[in-house]
Amino acid sequence: MTELGIVRRRIERADAQAVQRLSHFGVATIHEAMGRVGLLKPYMRPAFGGARLCGTAVTVLLQPGDNWMLHVAAEQLREGDIVVAACTTDCDDGFFGDLLATSFRARGGKGLVIDGGVRDVKDLAAMNFPVFSRAIGARGTVKATLGSVNVPVVCAGGLVNPGDVVIADDDGVVIVPAALAAATAEASRQREDNETGKRQRLAAGELGLDMYAMREPLARAGLRYID
Amino acid sequence: MTELGIVRRRIERADAQAVQRLSHFGVATIHEAMGRVGLLKPYMRPAFGGARLCGTAVTVLLQPGDNWMLHVAAEQLREGDIVVAACTTDCDDGFFGDLLATSFRARGGKGLVIDGGVRDVKDLAAMNFPVFSRAIGARGTVKATLGSVNVPVVCAGGLVNPGDVVIADDDGVVIVPAALAAATAEASRQREDNETGKRQRLAAGELGLDMYAMREPLARAGLRYID
Amino acid sequence: MTELGIVRRRIERADAQAVQRLSHFGVATIHEAMGRVGLLKPYMRPAFGGARLCGTAVTVLLQPGDNWMLHVAAEQLREGDIVVAACTTDCDDGFFGDLLATSFRARGGKGLVIDGGVRDVKDLAAMNFPVFSRAIGARGTVKATLGSVNVPVVCAGGLVNPGDVVIADDDGVVIVPAALAAATAEASRQREDNETGKRQRLAAGELGLDMYAMREPLARAGLRYID
Amino acid sequence: MTELGIVRRRIERADAQAVQRLSHFGVATIHEAMGRVGLLKPYMRPAFGGARLCGTAVTVLLQPGDNWMLHVAAEQLREGDIVVAACTTDCDDGFFGDLLATSFRARGGKGLVIDGGVRDVKDLAAMNFPVFSRAIGARGTVKATLGSVNVPVVCAGGLVNPGDVVIADDDGVVIVPAALAAATAEASRQREDNETGKRQRLAAGELGLDMYAMREPLARAGLRYID
Amino acid sequence: MTELGIVRRRIERADAQAVQRLSHFGVATIHEAMGRVGLLKPYMRPAFGGARLCGTAVTVLLQPGDNWMLHVAAEQLREGDIVVAACTTDCDDGFFGDLLATSFRARGGKGLVIDGGVRDVKDLAAMNFPVFSRAIGARGTVKATLGSVNVPVVCAGGLVNPGDVVIADDDGVVIVPAALAAATAEASRQREDNETGKRQRLAAGELGLDMYAMREPLARAGLRYID
Amino acid sequence: MTELGIVRRRIERADAQAVQRLSHFGVATIHEAMGRVGLLKPYMRPAFGGARLCGTAVTVLLQPGDNWMLHVAAEQLREGDIVVAACTTDCDDGFFGDLLATSFRARGGKGLVIDGGVRDVKDLAAMNFPVFSRAIGARGTVKATLGSVNVPVVCAGGLVNPGDVVIADDDGVVIVPAALAAATAEASRQREDNETGKRQRLAAGELGLDMYAMREPLARAGLRYID
Repeated sequence: MTELGIVRRRIERADAQAVQRLSHFGVATIHEAMGRVGLLKPYMRPAFGGARLCGTAVTVLLQPGDNWMLHVAAEQLREGDIVVAACTTDCDDGFFGDLLATSFRARGGKGLVIDGGVRDVKDLAAMNFPVFSRAIGARGTVKATLGSVNVPVVCAGGLVNPGDVVIADDDGVVIVPAALAAATAEASRQREDNETGKRQRLAAGELGLDMYAMREPLARAGLRYID
Repeated sequence: MTELGIVRRRIERADAQAVQRLSHFGVATIHEAMGRVGLLKPYMRPAFGGARLCGTAVTVLLQPGDNWMLHVAAEQLREGDIVVAACTTDCDDGFFGDLLATSFRARGGKGLVIDGGVRDVKDLAAMNFPVFSRAIGARGTVKATLGSVNVPVVCAGGLVNPGDVVIADDDGVVIVPAALAAATAEASRQREDNETGKRQRLAAGELGLDMYAMREPLARAGLRYID
Repeated sequence: MTELGIVRRRIERADAQAVQRLSHFGVATIHEAMGRVGLLKPYMRPAFGGARLCGTAVTVLLQPGDNWMLHVAAEQLREGDIVVAACTTDCDDGFFGDLLATSFRARGGKGLVIDGGVRDVKDLAAMNFPVFSRAIGARGTVKATLGSVNVPVVCAGGLVNPGDVVIADDDGVVIVPAALAAATAEASRQREDNETGKRQRLAAGELGLDMYAMREPLARAGLRYID
Repeated sequence: MTELGIVRRRIERADAQAVQRLSHFGVATIHEAMGRVGLLKPYMRPAFGGARLCGTAVTVLLQPGDNWMLHVAAEQLREGDIVVAACTTDCDDGFFGDLLATSFRARGGKGLVIDGGVRDVKDLAAMNFPVFSRAIGARGTVKATLGSVNVPVVCAGGLVNPGDVVIADDDGVVIVPAALAAATAEASRQREDNETGKRQRLAAGELGLDMYAMREPLARAGLRYID
Repeated sequence: MTELGIVRRRIERADAQAVQRLSHFGVATIHEAMGRVGLLKPYMRPAFGGARLCGTAVTVLLQPGDNWMLHVAAEQLREGDIVVAACTTDCDDGFFGDLLATSFRARGGKGLVIDGGVRDVKDLAAMNFPVFSRAIGARGTVKATLGSVNVPVVCAGGLVNPGDVVIADDDGVVIVPAALAAATAEASRQREDNETGKRQRLAAGELGLDMYAMREPLARAGLRYID
Repeated sequence: MTELGIVRRRIERADAQAVQRLSHFGVATIHEAMGRVGLLKPYMRPAFGGARLCGTAVTVLLQPGDNWMLHVAAEQLREGDIVVAACTTDCDDGFFGDLLATSFRARGGKGLVIDGGVRDVKDLAAMNFPVFSRAIGARGTVKATLGSVNVPVVCAGGLVNPGDVVIADDDGVVIVPAALAAATAEASRQREDNETGKRQRLAAGELGLDMYAMREPLARAGLRYID
């Protein structure tokens, strides 16, 4: 359960090979392969164009206007981790900037997903440190109130457990539970293979109506064509 | 009237020459030339930078979380058409991605304007298939409930009839009724010619206050200058 | 006090040297150097990528859907001024486009910060005329109702007096009162010098926990580590 | 088509008997009876508790911050009319208060549906003059720019033609095209009769699963029960 | 983990006595007693004034515009349960009305907490069936796509497991994990006892500054008094 | 200028007689009498029905999620004061509840206007302690970071100086600068007298078109009547 004032040091990270395999697929594909669950809300956007992330979650629960726990999280990072930060209340302040990005990177961190604001976005782009956030906000934060690190958090409407796989691209952010990483990677590959064939048929002018055999169910549902 | 479960096959498209002439003007110019009506709400934004559209509307009414009707619409497309999709309720799901874009293009479709979400935006940008939407959302949709194709729809606050001209650029989206296409193109040209002269005078330092003869009406309205 | 129907011709602009010195720093740095006050709300965003501004404010109070006062403001501009426009009510209409940008530039104006909408954004980008706004809106405005020029205004949640320094970049917009310009520039320089050293230490893997001596206060606040 | 600067004096109002019959049904019932079309967006709320409306639409297109056309509309009212006001752009100003309510009532007007703000809500409640609006806003408006009266308008996402039937209650606002008024009243009655029986069976503990025969389609869709 | 297409029949409900004890306390008190976690987002509001709830959660995951799973949930209700419904995407449609309320009540259900819209609010008030929702929306829903019942859900930003205690009043909605119900009831009682004494001292004119001994920490933090 | 960490003990309150006279008028009337300035944004709503306020402002600047300064403000209250609280960033947390209301009342405070959240709304209604806020939020706050008391603040888009008159009712909140209190009371009285006559004429069926002599300016603006 979520509790304030706790740092969990040992977490079970998703299998590294599965993470590596998931890194080849887009967020939309993985979401479908998961059975249409696991997406964060669409207000989560990349702080700069072309950002893309795949790694394991170190979770953080922040208090509004307070980034103390991001410093605590830095110590818990391992190579390939992504910090996933939730906040106890909606807040667009700039919890994170280029100094913390420098620190995270030095400790193995690959990026940040934060249900809050970030700043120094020009520097983050120059560093090519991917960040997905709800806002860009120049207002800095204090270090006064405890949150937690590596507890389950609800970030942008999605449940994230420490060690889960986080994938983010231009389409949004999706969370794959650690235990499902390998199966989801496989399902994603199958889905993508399947889409390649469809794409060619559609490009040749075949209609989805025929390719997916929709005409009969549409008629049964009562669709009427009028000239 | 708007009704669910209908596909109208024959629509009256705006005159092709008028559409061609309208394609030279920006959304802001056309909106002014129309007498300041016809704009969709400003939350409609291009899914990728530099997108621009001008064509004739094939309209679609979607149900939330359901993109069945976009497949139905694909069959109704002709060269130069733009799909304009409304939804019976606000929904940011990703109704549209690169597969449908491939299908639309193969059938002559030039782009999409949708009061909903889209996904695969990186692919859409790579295809250079222009899309204007209310959101980017990775969550896919089902195919279970009937909407309609080629009925009048209210999309992002604007009424769109099948066959109307749709123009979209960085400033937003404007709809020109088919019957007004030629007159609006002409009015747009006059407006743009007129602006060229104004631009030169303003660049030379002349004030709008003088160029538009505003000093007298401002004084009459009671404007006071204080030193 | 804010009053409608007034144009103040003589305003006290911030010291030019101080403005010049402030132009070297980012919005986040200056906000911190000011003691964490002076930011406009984070919904204020650049109309095109890479925009950046530093100059002295000529303030404008607009009425919704009416840009008359922007023409009045053009006459009050001096070299290095930035127009800061508030509106008596929230409005996303396009109060400003490339013609007014041409006029402002010809009179010495360097950019615009507006709690409203703007249009012709492609042209503004081509002109490289920086604009920060709450929205992009193609809908033009009328010239019918008086506002004011060079009165104190509340723009996007921040108080702006004529002559104040306005700094805007990818992180947002900050206002420095004219009387504090020199001191703030100095404080910003100190802060930036200070950050350079920190950045190097963090890049070398030192933790913020140690660099900022946070371990003891965290323990005192009750933070518990669990294995 | 929507055009600015026009007042249509003669409009075709829905049949009075049909309006009378529709007045017995709630918005949710009528919406279903219409085939699930015709609702305005759910942000339209009553300005005071218990408000309820049923009548024929006199439509108004307003400019932001300007209520001139509401005065023009007053002259076009007949007994039983409801003013339906759209605005060319989103605006929460108080376009309407107790003076206009007094005037509307004196001319036969029964209420107001406005995609904008209203004020004097305490007085409106005391007068029991029903108003449904997007906002409550104390800021008054000017009388400077032309809109139109009795043209088709898009109000809160719904198309409204002059003479259409407007029904509003705690659940929202629905528009019934004049030509469909009688048929919709009849369909509403049938639907309500039908619901009475269902209500009794559900109250007795029968499940919707059984009453609507959902178990088989749920199983076919793949629903799994786990103990 | 959240999965679609599943109904869990056996759930572990919180201890009935603990639920009974929690029913005496307000949401704000319980949230504090829990250590400041467990609240749903503040956009969740009662559909009618004075509504109040305390019971055990039967959870539902809905699809947008589809209330099929609410019928499935009805069968799983026991005396004292509250349905907590999340949706896979934001949707303000009216998923729930007086017929479902009748059914829920007949099966022992005490109320509804739904991250979506509801309708028939006048009837719900007349029935005194408490509902807390994100919106009121007259638009009905279809029965076409599977969600789940009694899986963990994220509702309005909070994680809810089946069997958790749900408390809702004018201040909002809080979730108490089943295992913490008794301890939270006890902590709430202590907190409330403690507040009674404070209230009397404050009513007598004592300042919080003195009662909470804040003067010294304020001075240490640097607060300056100016005459 | 706004600065953090300051409490101003001596403030110049508006003349008590003028405040008393202003208490007879509604917010909409006073806003008009002020020349259409001084309103806070319309998202400021009463926490319970029928609330109404008129008094002198003690201003507070809060940090997000932190209500320390409200306790500091309590000591500065005199009979007839209203606390006006702004926050350095948007935050819907419950900064204020029945304990602080008890304290404020004991010190002479009449109510609260806060650009943030409040809780214990049922208790506040029972106490009849008027509160106008941007939100209702059960989440409590900490006491860790300094703001200020009796500095100028921007609250909900309006500038408020300590000692200004605050008037709030169902229509919203308006601020009258202390120096303008007497003149605004007089202008309000004249406006209200004037409206009484108008109301009677409108009730008798006279049109605003005639009473305000609008027909000629409408025709001049180009309004066309069509039969």
